Amino acid sequence: MPPIPVNHARMLGDLDHLRSFGAQGTGVARMAFSQADVAARAWLATRMQEAGLRAVVDPCGNLFGIPPGNGPCLLVGSHSDTQPLGGWLDGAYGVICGLELARAALESGGPRIAVVSFQDEEGRFGGVMGSAVWTGAMRLDDADAQTDADGIRFAEARKAVSAIAPTGTVDPAMFAGFVEAHIEQGPALDRAGQSIGVVEAIVGVRSWTITFTGEANHAGTTPMSLRRDAVQALGQYITDLNAAFAPLVTDRTVWTLGRITVSPNAPSIVPGQTSVSVQMRDADAARLEAMKDTALQTARATGAARGIEMKAAEGLSLAPVPMDPGLVLALTAAAEASAPGYWRKMPSGALHDASNVALILPTAMLFVPSIGGISHNPAEDTARHHLETGLIALADAAARWLAH
Amino acid sequence: MPPIPVNHARMLGDLDHLRSFGAQGTGVARMAFSQADVAARAWLATRMQEAGLRAVVDPCGNLFGIPPGNGPCLLVGSHSDTQPLGGWLDGAYGVICGLELARAALESGGPRIAVVSFQDEEGRFGGVMGSAVWTGAMRLDDADAQTDADGIRFAEARKAVSAIAPTGTVDPAMFAGFVEAHIEQGPALDRAGQSIGVVEAIVGVRSWTITFTGEANHAGTTPMSLRRDAVQALGQYITDLNAAFAPLVTDRTVWTLGRITVSPNAPSIVPGQTSVSVQMRDADAARLEAMKDTALQTARATGAARGIEMKAAEGLSLAPVPMDPGLVLALTAAAEASAPGYWRKMPSGALHDASNVALILPTAMLFVPSIGGISHNPAEDTARHHLETGLIALADAAARWLAH
Repeated sequence: MPPIPVNHARMLGDLDHLRSFGAQGTGVARMAFSQADVAARAWLATRMQEAGLRAVVDPCGNLFGIPPGNGPCLLVGSHSDTQPLGGWLDGAYGVICGLELARAALESGGPRIAVVSFQDEEGRFGGVMGSAVWTGAMRLDDADAQTDADGIRFAEARKAVSAIAPTGTVDPAMFAGFVEAHIEQGPALDRAGQSIGVVEAIVGVRSWTITFTGEANHAGTTPMSLRRDAVQALGQYITDLNAAFAPLVTDRTVWTLGRITVSPNAPSIVPGQTSVSVQMRDADAARLEAMKDTALQTARATGAARGIEMKAAEGLSLAPVPMDPGLVLALTAAAEASAPGYWRKMPSGALHDASNVALILPTAMLFVPSIGGISHNPAEDTARHHLETGLIALADAAARWLAH
Repeated sequence: MPPIPVNHARMLGDLDHLRSFGAQGTGVARMAFSQADVAARAWLATRMQEAGLRAVVDPCGNLFGIPPGNGPCLLVGSHSDTQPLGGWLDGAYGVICGLELARAALESGGPRIAVVSFQDEEGRFGGVMGSAVWTGAMRLDDADAQTDADGIRFAEARKAVSAIAPTGTVDPAMFAGFVEAHIEQGPALDRAGQSIGVVEAIVGVRSWTITFTGEANHAGTTPMSLRRDAVQALGQYITDLNAAFAPLVTDRTVWTLGRITVSPNAPSIVPGQTSVSVQMRDADAARLEAMKDTALQTARATGAARGIEMKAAEGLSLAPVPMDPGLVLALTAAAEASAPGYWRKMPSGALHDASNVALILPTAMLFVPSIGGISHNPAEDTARHHLETGLIALADAAARWLAH
């Protein structure tokens, strides 16, 4: 099957126009079901219709552009909602790539490509919620009960779907697979001067909150030898954990101790209690499990050595999501063809709509670089030639995979 | 000079009665110039007058009981205000010891002893404020501008002095020295099974806030090698500081990292900034200075090793206050006489009114044990026999020193 003749200028033009909905300086404010989001989706629906695609918005606000005909169809897309004040590419790049692919394929009599913009990936009501409901991972009733920061229910907000496109439902079974293009949102490709990342897996996440309880005391009258100082335990834990993880991890494993509380948190009182969040991410489920065990064991040892009580509470836990080997193979071949030597396989450290879709369809992701690794920020950007190379690789991979 | 024949039962009876003002369970709520505090001071003034002492309250609310006659006079006392909800002995013990000593000395034709209850030692408006103004360390105008947590000015609150006793001023020059008895508020004497601590010095305090500024980043997409993680710097600093202090300190030196802030303090964001308070206390000024230098140098090294900016801001700084050698000698001899083998010399890790008075008069302190080291808490207590032994030693020391 010949490559799909995508039009770079048209893709970049659409991307620029999408940016105008909710533009604030170089950033974009287009949260799910905001006026700007609804207007952007309505414009996207029009662009789909102009291309000969059937635009349909489902009850959640997920907008699909479906080609005519029958036969295997590859779904390509991402999300067009943003953070409260986000960047212009996060989600949008994947949606416009899908639009251009579907359009170019239809124009050229190529393979069947559909496009999607999932709703509320960024979590105004709940992260990756549109794709969660579409794939059956979440019930619409449960989504409806979610509220935003102002107390507005999703059930209320999603009444705006009728302003977007003809409403309907879209059966996932009509698609053979799903590919999501996205900015990396990290610095790896940019640092390495590479154009493309082929995602092998979306990392799993294990999160715990460790609490050390010692004894609060007068900071002047309590000798060091009689203290049960929770901050001292915390410091020891942070450093010991690095040593304990060292033999387990790869250079792609990450762990973050991002949230700390101290009680009573006063300069003149020996701290009686501290808590710290430990979030671990890796693409390998067995490694994650070993890290979790090590994190808890190190915390127990730290507490025991100091006569300090340790408690651990589990937080967010997500299993790693491997990408479809056939799609990864197609993306790998396409990346080597379009950017020989300037691509890599890598895990996705962030969650995406692909995490949900992978539960029901062969799914893969393609990354393009983020300048400085910056995302969720008006400064988010990617060099135009990388945006173009990503689109070419995506078109090539789609053709390869559908021809198989 | 014969010992002053103090009456234990009368001292304990007065201490129990003082406890009734502001009693809340086993604790006491008697903040400076609260109704309970003013009533307690008025009662104390009456007890002074009954004993033949001249009661006089100064503009700050410091209440004095002055013996008739001329000649060298030793001032004995502490403070009768409490924390918002404090214990029954903190301050009160020293005041009632002073009352009993002055009373017993007058009854027995012994040496001239005066008694004082300083105002607002516990800091409703400002810590050790009454003694600060009396000794000239603080101007009354500056005290007047201080406000409590509800915005009430000291100038307003101190109008209640007229309800306490005849008002007037008391010239510090009329006293030859000052001795303050106090509960230890730490566990050293209780742990050692000792009755008396003779304070050699009130420790100095150096306080700094260290701020580490790295870079906040996505906790999933930012590789460990590219992070500038402020919590990692914090953990390293806490542990490195222990090692750096080890060669400098004694077993009486203390340091406390009591207050920590983290920004943005979210489990999924690599922490960009942390700050930590470092408070160091020691009775030796040179050691404190060396510790301060080490704390800053270690912070600089921690930051530099991780590409993290370090800033240090100075907080509370108090020089160590040595006690008067002659008074310490008298207390030492008295402690050995009344509790042979069951006393020790020690620093005071907490600030006291004696810190101010030492600036203008020969000053010393005597500690009795705090059960479990507990203070500023309704559970604060001391075995009755230790309260009695402390009074005997105080009486003995006063007689020895005034005879000298």
